[in-house]
Amino acid sequence: MRKYVILAEGNFTPHSAKTALGVLRFAKDETVAVIDSQKAGQDVSAALHADVGKGIPVVSTIDEAFAYKPTALLIGIAPIGGKLPDSWQPILQRALELGLEIVSGLHFFLNDDPELTAAAQKYGATIWDVRKPQPQYAMRIGQGKSHRQGSTTIFMAGSDCNVGKMTAALVMEQTARQRGHNSAFAATGQTGIMIAGEGVPTDRIISDFVNGAVEWLLMDLTNKHDWVFVEGQGSLCHPAYSAVTLGLLHGAHPDLQILCHEANRGFINEYPGYPIPPLKELIIMYETAARWLKPAPIVGVSLNTFSLSEEEARIAIEKATAETGLPVTDPVRFGADALVNAIESAAK
Amino acid sequence: MRKYVILAEGNFTPHSAKTALGVLRFAKDETVAVIDSQKAGQDVSAALHADVGKGIPVVSTIDEAFAYKPTALLIGIAPIGGKLPDSWQPILQRALELGLEIVSGLHFFLNDDPELTAAAQKYGATIWDVRKPQPQYAMRIGQGKSHRQGSTTIFMAGSDCNVGKMTAALVMEQTARQRGHNSAFAATGQTGIMIAGEGVPTDRIISDFVNGAVEWLLMDLTNKHDWVFVEGQGSLCHPAYSAVTLGLLHGAHPDLQILCHEANRGFINEYPGYPIPPLKELIIMYETAARWLKPAPIVGVSLNTFSLSEEEARIAIEKATAETGLPVTDPVRFGADALVNAIESAAK
Repeated sequence: MRKYVILAEGNFTPHSAKTALGVLRFAKDETVAVIDSQKAGQDVSAALHADVGKGIPVVSTIDEAFAYKPTALLIGIAPIGGKLPDSWQPILQRALELGLEIVSGLHFFLNDDPELTAAAQKYGATIWDVRKPQPQYAMRIGQGKSHRQGSTTIFMAGSDCNVGKMTAALVMEQTARQRGHNSAFAATGQTGIMIAGEGVPTDRIISDFVNGAVEWLLMDLTNKHDWVFVEGQGSLCHPAYSAVTLGLLHGAHPDLQILCHEANRGFINEYPGYPIPPLKELIIMYETAARWLKPAPIVGVSLNTFSLSEEEARIAIEKATAETGLPVTDPVRFGADALVNAIESAAK
Repeated sequence: MRKYVILAEGNFTPHSAKTALGVLRFAKDETVAVIDSQKAGQDVSAALHADVGKGIPVVSTIDEAFAYKPTALLIGIAPIGGKLPDSWQPILQRALELGLEIVSGLHFFLNDDPELTAAAQKYGATIWDVRKPQPQYAMRIGQGKSHRQGSTTIFMAGSDCNVGKMTAALVMEQTARQRGHNSAFAATGQTGIMIAGEGVPTDRIISDFVNGAVEWLLMDLTNKHDWVFVEGQGSLCHPAYSAVTLGLLHGAHPDLQILCHEANRGFINEYPGYPIPPLKELIIMYETAARWLKPAPIVGVSLNTFSLSEEEARIAIEKATAETGLPVTDPVRFGADALVNAIESAAK
């Protein structure tokens, strides 16, 4: 069990602190402090306007954080493209000097940085590059194999990045487990892997092997579990990441899908020229792409209503229900029962 | 200008010698010999039943090939997954000892093999890993940018791997150039890069950056040329490679598409559980996937009739024409005029 200090300097906001929020909400590892000098003095719950992190302090420096006895520094934001900001070097150096493990989900591997590895060696610290592909799947060619008969694989299809696909999968999986299903969460991104402890960093796999790596993960999980919830990535209509999304969808060989969307998001984030299609078109998009290999109907919609009041959220959910004819809810706000019911009906 | 000996030991057949055939047919570099002990004594044209390679000898060993004064050894087959067969080590060692450059399109980088790099250094030879991503695009995030107004990008959409997408693009580009168009070929795979001298090894790019790397290539080519023919890869319905295909399609931002298929191929090669859909469904598939970002109608079909007699080929082309309502031809056998006419009409 790790005790984390989360580094989120200058970026500890609900939208850019996706990794921090995921770990705070779902990881078994404990978080003891967060570093962001701009929000220092608040607690995590106040800084993120979230229902998690009450009493966990936000502090200015790694040395202040060390007073709370962390065992590891987790890099808690995911900058687009995954590059390491220069200003973080001294913080990481200091963390290693203090003997902390560093846990990073960046595309840039800290283990490839000679200064950091030298410091790690000098102070007996370790660095876990969560996004580094492991040999057992890094260059595996997809076989197109079927999953164990009786297992059900559920793919979280997204309208965009950062709409709540991972969160919806985790909440649904918890709910399914509480109902007695032998279920599992298939982590396909760095935050998911930090939470689950294992998975495949899909967006870091060489494109020729994306389908194969995901297939490898799902073959393993569906052999052990009856229901597997697969974290989606990106979107089929994302100008930068559609390759990742389709490889993941096809490699997962899902039986069912849940569409994940953020209420009121009209355009692909950071791509103002690219509108997000209406929900009904998104459903057709994902069902069509799945069917190129194997049909996988969408049986429910997870609507992230974080930016709305509770009343607005209920109205948005009603509207999406009318629009799609499917069960719709915000699993974080209102629980995942409606969606898990839909899976129970369809999986039979 | 290189003088190639092509290594194709045990695999110098029309279907597995895709790289050799492409280089023989389209590269400016000359080929002086081919190594395949099973076909030694024939010439290349006879060994491949092809219209190229008349008088180029097939020999048994690298030492025999050396008599024809090559300057480079080209690894001339593309094994699935791109691994280096052990039995090739002594041949490559000997080639380096003879001072030959080695040109490899494998996933496995020869420059990462300590024995080969030691030999290269010892004998003053070099190794070109064609598939190694270059820094200018290796980690580039797609921007979703538009091409230069007035340029036309044509994407070669495929029903499967190895159906003739690259060949169709090269023949069409030649024809377009002969008609006076300022055209170019965008190489997106190892053989295409060997032929063109530059390009993006799409299937070797980290999946997060596939769209961006291809976009980078096309921004450059469409700034310089009016018509750009983009080599496709894999297929949207391929269980292993669909990630590569969609990233390439979306990163290329095409205006038009040509569907490429091999006559009588009913199933994805090496995936007997995966039938290839009818041509009309393939057309809908690619037009649908393109439209998620930007519409790109399919305006013609390139039908590879290599395995058919000439009469059978004409019948297959007539049938495909009736089925799709589009211009159809085998550009290698009958010339690319019908397809280039279609581009001329649509590009206006």
